[in-house]
Amino acid sequence: MFEHNDPNRIQLNSSGQLRHFLTTEGLSRELLTEILDTADSFVDMGAKQIKKMPLLRGRTVVNLFFEASTRTLSTFELAAKRLSADVLNLNISTSSTSKGETLKDTLMTLEAMHSDMFVVRHADSGAAHFIASQVTPHVAVINAGDGRHAHPTQAMLDMLTIRRHKGSFEPLTFAIVGDILHSRVARSQIHALRTLGAREIRVIAPKTLLPRHIEAMGVKVFTDMREGLKDVDVIMMLRLQKERMTSALLPSESEFYKLYGMTTEKLAYAHPEAVVMHPGPINRGVEIESAIADGPRSLILDQVTNGIAVRMAVMSMAMSGQVVEKQLQHPSAN
Amino acid sequence: MFEHNDPNRIQLNSSGQLRHFLTTEGLSRELLTEILDTADSFVDMGAKQIKKMPLLRGRTVVNLFFEASTRTLSTFELAAKRLSADVLNLNISTSSTSKGETLKDTLMTLEAMHSDMFVVRHADSGAAHFIASQVTPHVAVINAGDGRHAHPTQAMLDMLTIRRHKGSFEPLTFAIVGDILHSRVARSQIHALRTLGAREIRVIAPKTLLPRHIEAMGVKVFTDMREGLKDVDVIMMLRLQKERMTSALLPSESEFYKLYGMTTEKLAYAHPEAVVMHPGPINRGVEIESAIADGPRSLILDQVTNGIAVRMAVMSMAMSGQVVEKQLQHPSAN
Amino acid sequence: MFEHNDPNRIQLNSSGQLRHFLTTEGLSRELLTEILDTADSFVDMGAKQIKKMPLLRGRTVVNLFFEASTRTLSTFELAAKRLSADVLNLNISTSSTSKGETLKDTLMTLEAMHSDMFVVRHADSGAAHFIASQVTPHVAVINAGDGRHAHPTQAMLDMLTIRRHKGSFEPLTFAIVGDILHSRVARSQIHALRTLGAREIRVIAPKTLLPRHIEAMGVKVFTDMREGLKDVDVIMMLRLQKERMTSALLPSESEFYKLYGMTTEKLAYAHPEAVVMHPGPINRGVEIESAIADGPRSLILDQVTNGIAVRMAVMSMAMSGQVVEKQLQHPSAN
Repeated sequence: MFEHNDPNRIQLNSSGQLRHFLTTEGLSRELLTEILDTADSFVDMGAKQIKKMPLLRGRTVVNLFFEASTRTLSTFELAAKRLSADVLNLNISTSSTSKGETLKDTLMTLEAMHSDMFVVRHADSGAAHFIASQVTPHVAVINAGDGRHAHPTQAMLDMLTIRRHKGSFEPLTFAIVGDILHSRVARSQIHALRTLGAREIRVIAPKTLLPRHIEAMGVKVFTDMREGLKDVDVIMMLRLQKERMTSALLPSESEFYKLYGMTTEKLAYAHPEAVVMHPGPINRGVEIESAIADGPRSLILDQVTNGIAVRMAVMSMAMSGQVVEKQLQHPSAN
Repeated sequence: MFEHNDPNRIQLNSSGQLRHFLTTEGLSRELLTEILDTADSFVDMGAKQIKKMPLLRGRTVVNLFFEASTRTLSTFELAAKRLSADVLNLNISTSSTSKGETLKDTLMTLEAMHSDMFVVRHADSGAAHFIASQVTPHVAVINAGDGRHAHPTQAMLDMLTIRRHKGSFEPLTFAIVGDILHSRVARSQIHALRTLGAREIRVIAPKTLLPRHIEAMGVKVFTDMREGLKDVDVIMMLRLQKERMTSALLPSESEFYKLYGMTTEKLAYAHPEAVVMHPGPINRGVEIESAIADGPRSLILDQVTNGIAVRMAVMSMAMSGQVVEKQLQHPSAN
Repeated sequence: MFEHNDPNRIQLNSSGQLRHFLTTEGLSRELLTEILDTADSFVDMGAKQIKKMPLLRGRTVVNLFFEASTRTLSTFELAAKRLSADVLNLNISTSSTSKGETLKDTLMTLEAMHSDMFVVRHADSGAAHFIASQVTPHVAVINAGDGRHAHPTQAMLDMLTIRRHKGSFEPLTFAIVGDILHSRVARSQIHALRTLGAREIRVIAPKTLLPRHIEAMGVKVFTDMREGLKDVDVIMMLRLQKERMTSALLPSESEFYKLYGMTTEKLAYAHPEAVVMHPGPINRGVEIESAIADGPRSLILDQVTNGIAVRMAVMSMAMSGQVVEKQLQHPSAN
């Protein structure tokens, strides 16, 4: 009964291991730390000549992208291939699903092909949860971004990057800057940072790009960069989701850059050892100054490297969690 | 001489083994049974964690799709990858082949790259046969659907599904329902069912969707579902090939559904243990009622699972038939 | 200092081994011969059932195509897969790169994913050189065609084809026929032929399709096929780059064919054992007569076969050159 009341319980098997990865919300500190520890080992492997592990050998991973994203698709494709999985990329535009077959039929068909994992990207919030609730047992679902809801692998690669550079979360103050309103990344970051014990989390944005009641998530709200960045240790810039914004919310790119773009001048407001992050792709001169993006305090490329490692980690952990669950339920089965 | 007069002889090597798979027509009961037996073993493998066999390791399979079909392409891609082949997907639209290079040149170029197998889908009837007649020895051709002619892997996955559920073909009565006129699936099903010893085969369709002289294929023709489904054991629905129909042939989707759609009411006309099949993707409420599609007598998802297994079977058998032929012709060669 | 003044020095590591493959210009006869020798061994492997070598196992090869070319992409994809690499195909249209992210950012991002090799095709001359100058050490860049500048793997597959049929370059006279002006292939062929010791190199084209000062490359210029083909041993036809030509340069296809198309009649001008080559795809009846293309003196399909082998050779050599360089610079590293 409890399990059905907890929307995030769907992510865990009956032993409490990860079996889907849909959101950072509601996952325990132990589990997030396990993801980071597992990813850490993959970071080291990535630097080797032979970047290949047999953890998903003979498994079929389907990248089910209802929303196009070459970059995110590439990272999941590479992660799956480095785990030795067979990979099927399906770009399912709205038009093709409306061509008769329902989403449920698409899922059931892919399951009947003995797919083991769906990596889902969708413009609708909740799509990955819905799919996880619909799939047959033993298929793992990884959320690669759903609407404004969550982008948990992005948040966890940010956590990994922070931990590798700063050691721990407890003593640090974080600022998330930009279009908080439309950002699934910001939501996933805030949940992860709180669970991992961040001392203070701030969001900095113009009023028009702040969701109502954002304070309820446990963050401090600022509309001014000078105030918001004071003594901050980690600055997490967001992308301007141009395609999601109506012009009414934002006067112009240059206006945004002047007020909220990350520049050398504004970086000086923060702690002298503050680092700057950005999920990419970056818009130079709109969200971030090149001197910052390419400078010694930028962790942008570390984020990319860690992104492959985090994806390998959650893919292998979720697959393993499904196997354990299957064994618990059918002790004699394969 | 005889061999040249038999258009299907091209499918076999000089020992009578499969070397291409172009049509179910003209293949012996023994050979069709061998395909089903081989596929049976792959069905069991598909349920395992490691769904990987080295039968096509180091081989190059080219999916040569002149007619787009994400779903069929995915099944062949997965089947080839699970056999450990290297896979190249080529979507060749009419426009690009008309951009100078002839079909023959495309084939010769791919052969010169040491491709081992072409999986061909084409809007023209006879395309797969033509390609098999043109390719260099040792390249196997698999027909993934050619015009109105044949779709033999679809027919064989249907046969496998029937055999796994009913045990044998001899005591059963079959009904194929829908757009018989445009259906390559129906043609391939009828040939396979007759060869495998089906007691009775019926086709049920409006007169406008029935080919002339269809009785010559050894089927009984019905235009009324109540009569046609009487005592039937297996009901094989067809897709409405909307893109192939002119409005003149079919008044409307709702009219079709009323007369020929598979509903609980019409299923009651058939044998009490009758099963329902459909090649997918299904159009709910046009060809089939959801209560049937998702009900206990639907074999639709088994068909998908068996589709991967049948494709793995014909791919590995045809490749093996080519190797044997090569050894017979060049005993000293590799 | 010398090294920085030599634009082609970038292709070699500090031991003089290949680490990028950008152009045939400036490479030594020894190195070109090493490429041909390595490729020779892959030609033999290609004819075997299992066409798979572990030379790039665990490596990530990114096909970075800023200019679409299904055919060239397929050859690099197959070559990489036969070397057991993980392959990522990225078609980067001008529109998507202009969507914010700069080329440099795209490269840095792919490097941060621990890509090992970029296969680059680009409409701008010099793009591959630029990318090689920008990439992090240890990433190898292979030029798959840049503007009018170079197409070195095409040139080397031509060299391999010639050597396998004629044995050596010294006693032979070569004629390159067609649109010299726009041809990166011709440039790469001329550099390779000169380095490999060709006795004489001719170019034959209408004046409008000849670059100024082409004689400075060490070739003899002809505008008449009868004169130009006299006693020639190897005829290398070029593609008509229709998309690159304005109508002003060429009256019509039929006019071109009449004057410069390779026909039985014109082949008679050449040496009695002259062979004919073409990079494909061929335009029958525009650049070449079918009787020639399919005849005993055509090497067109050998070129395709040798193309896979040459690509495997330069990919494995460049990767190996990067590994050696890394070891020289960081003796203790992995």
